[in-house]
Amino acid sequence: MFSVEEHLALIGRGADEILKLEDLEARLKLGRPLRVKAGFDPTAPDLHLGHTVLLTKMRQFQDLGHTVIFLIGDFTGMIGDPSGKNITRKPLSREDVLANAQTYADQVYKVLDREKTELRFNSEWFGKMAAADMIKLAAQHTVARMLERDDFSKRYASQQPIAIHEFLYPLVQGYDSIALRADVELGGTDQKFNLLVGRGLQESYGRQPPQIVLTMPLLVGLDGVQKMSKSLGNYIGISEPPVDIVTKTMKVDDGLMWRWIELLSLGISAAEAGKLRADVEAGQLNPRAVKLKLAREFVTRFYDAAAAEKAIAGWEAVVSGQGDTSVLPLQEVKVPAGGLRIAALLTAVGLTPSNSEAMRKLKEKAVRVRGEVVEDPQRQFAPEFEGVLQVGKRTFVRVKLVAE
Amino acid sequence: MFSVEEHLALIGRGADEILKLEDLEARLKLGRPLRVKAGFDPTAPDLHLGHTVLLTKMRQFQDLGHTVIFLIGDFTGMIGDPSGKNITRKPLSREDVLANAQTYADQVYKVLDREKTELRFNSEWFGKMAAADMIKLAAQHTVARMLERDDFSKRYASQQPIAIHEFLYPLVQGYDSIALRADVELGGTDQKFNLLVGRGLQESYGRQPPQIVLTMPLLVGLDGVQKMSKSLGNYIGISEPPVDIVTKTMKVDDGLMWRWIELLSLGISAAEAGKLRADVEAGQLNPRAVKLKLAREFVTRFYDAAAAEKAIAGWEAVVSGQGDTSVLPLQEVKVPAGGLRIAALLTAVGLTPSNSEAMRKLKEKAVRVRGEVVEDPQRQFAPEFEGVLQVGKRTFVRVKLVAE
Repeated sequence: MFSVEEHLALIGRGADEILKLEDLEARLKLGRPLRVKAGFDPTAPDLHLGHTVLLTKMRQFQDLGHTVIFLIGDFTGMIGDPSGKNITRKPLSREDVLANAQTYADQVYKVLDREKTELRFNSEWFGKMAAADMIKLAAQHTVARMLERDDFSKRYASQQPIAIHEFLYPLVQGYDSIALRADVELGGTDQKFNLLVGRGLQESYGRQPPQIVLTMPLLVGLDGVQKMSKSLGNYIGISEPPVDIVTKTMKVDDGLMWRWIELLSLGISAAEAGKLRADVEAGQLNPRAVKLKLAREFVTRFYDAAAAEKAIAGWEAVVSGQGDTSVLPLQEVKVPAGGLRIAALLTAVGLTPSNSEAMRKLKEKAVRVRGEVVEDPQRQFAPEFEGVLQVGKRTFVRVKLVAE
Repeated sequence: MFSVEEHLALIGRGADEILKLEDLEARLKLGRPLRVKAGFDPTAPDLHLGHTVLLTKMRQFQDLGHTVIFLIGDFTGMIGDPSGKNITRKPLSREDVLANAQTYADQVYKVLDREKTELRFNSEWFGKMAAADMIKLAAQHTVARMLERDDFSKRYASQQPIAIHEFLYPLVQGYDSIALRADVELGGTDQKFNLLVGRGLQESYGRQPPQIVLTMPLLVGLDGVQKMSKSLGNYIGISEPPVDIVTKTMKVDDGLMWRWIELLSLGISAAEAGKLRADVEAGQLNPRAVKLKLAREFVTRFYDAAAAEKAIAGWEAVVSGQGDTSVLPLQEVKVPAGGLRIAALLTAVGLTPSNSEAMRKLKEKAVRVRGEVVEDPQRQFAPEFEGVLQVGKRTFVRVKLVAE
């Protein structure tokens, strides 16, 4: 169906490194579906776009006809933190693992093709492994080579303790590749060392052809600088309301937009992205149109096409000041029976971080209520008020006030 | 029966280190038999006096009323060399292990009291241990602390590979102490690091009082300089013929003799040794008498009292040139029908390393045949000759020549 060249183009899109490209080429020439492995923590996930970089690559493999193995590393999860130092990392029970797997499934099948996904747990083979075999596995790697891993070498140099079992975990991950007969393993760039351990183990211990290692970069978040993460607040969660996904995506700056398309879009091909970019750079296309296209793809993926159209229509209605904003979700805000002044209200709904910031925005004429600029800081809002509050053009929320 | 002071005196005799002495004192005060562990390789042993240093200490514990655990480390022996680099270290089968254990038993019960010895195999608990529990065990120690072990730190510094499973073996040995609830672990000075790992593990992981670690020095061999070992040829094997044990013991120099008594004698107490030494130093006692006493103890231990008397009588007959040498074992030597010249014969029976050395000894008048000095290098010995050949006063063999 697809030529080796087509494969390499799509697989290589956005990838950080492929080790080794010639191995991948040779493996593709076999003409059979490849077994493409990616490992995930067994903890309960709450995914954001950053996590979907890997899922998107997995989906591309599926679209090319390959088998994707979604591997949950429950074996080590059920051990917990055996040094007992990290009391927050409690051992997971079998029930915890299954519940978390369900949470994963609810989310990842928004990106992955369920039919072409093999969901596996590594307790399947490690649960019945004997201590003697763990010793044999440990014999397959040296202390010096393990200490070459970036985080280990830093910790060792700065005299932070490394417990010996931490040296076993990359081998556990590598052994998974043997058990699964993986042709390819995907991971973030920070996983490169571990993925290469698997590659080596397959060859020396498993007597299997070594897996191809494909690393994907970390996604830069909304701030355009740091990697997307919950704790930095620069993320788009895949379970956020459609209008929030649209609003946030529309705020991404143009440069980052092209990178997001490269790493996250399944609908905009590399060729199409190149054409869009040329048009934007020639001034023939407003980047807003490209972002809308991307936002539509996200909402369609995480919800459906109708939700995407509705969210975009709402967003356009607010931003243009025309059209029906009633398609936007309504946030109920509890206020005192006597109502709330504008600055307090803006802060209460999260549009401004503080009353003083709200006052500044009022002075800048950046605050709109139902599309009209409001400057009067004395303006009071009573229960039963309903409408869109806006700070700047693209930050807004549709609220309904109710008495406390 | 014995006071704590008597215990400490006997246990401490010849010991290199006791960690910690106050723990040992406190444990002895409990008044119950202590569980005293010593671990041994599961390979087929051929013991010499050097090995019996530890066995002698174990026997002293038994004589004080304690329980000695003779632990065979068959778990790792059955794994073999998992890195596959040492092809001479093949995995042992269950049958190998049991056969080797029998070989041990045949030898060690010449020193140990069989009734007070608990013979154990660590496959008993490790054979049923799961891989997950090996990981938990590995978490109990850090990489940095393991690299402090002398041989590891040297190998790491000189960039010789250390396989990761080698870090697990001290933990395996330590876990044995938990499984056995050891009060004391004995070992050579080179084992100190591993014994301390066991001490730490018992406390942190086993929630047991930490074992007392007792290390014994290595025995200096016949050359008076290097540790006794097979490969250096400076040893007395416990299965050597009685007369050889006597002959070799009688050649030990006086200083080493006192050390051997300290480390190997069960019959000569520390007090008696002190008195003997004072008498020798005052010129009131010939050290030969002390060595004979020690030689008699060795042969009695490894054979019996009658064998000891017989071997000593034979030795004295040869050395004094008087008495009945027929008690000595007879070595048959095959010679050509025409006989053999003296130099060739001395070399054939191992009394001289070469014919030229034999010629030198003849010139020195150091060669005796049936007690008579022989100088003539042409002297021929025909089949059916029987008698004692001697080089120097104390090196001899009783031979019978037979035609090839």
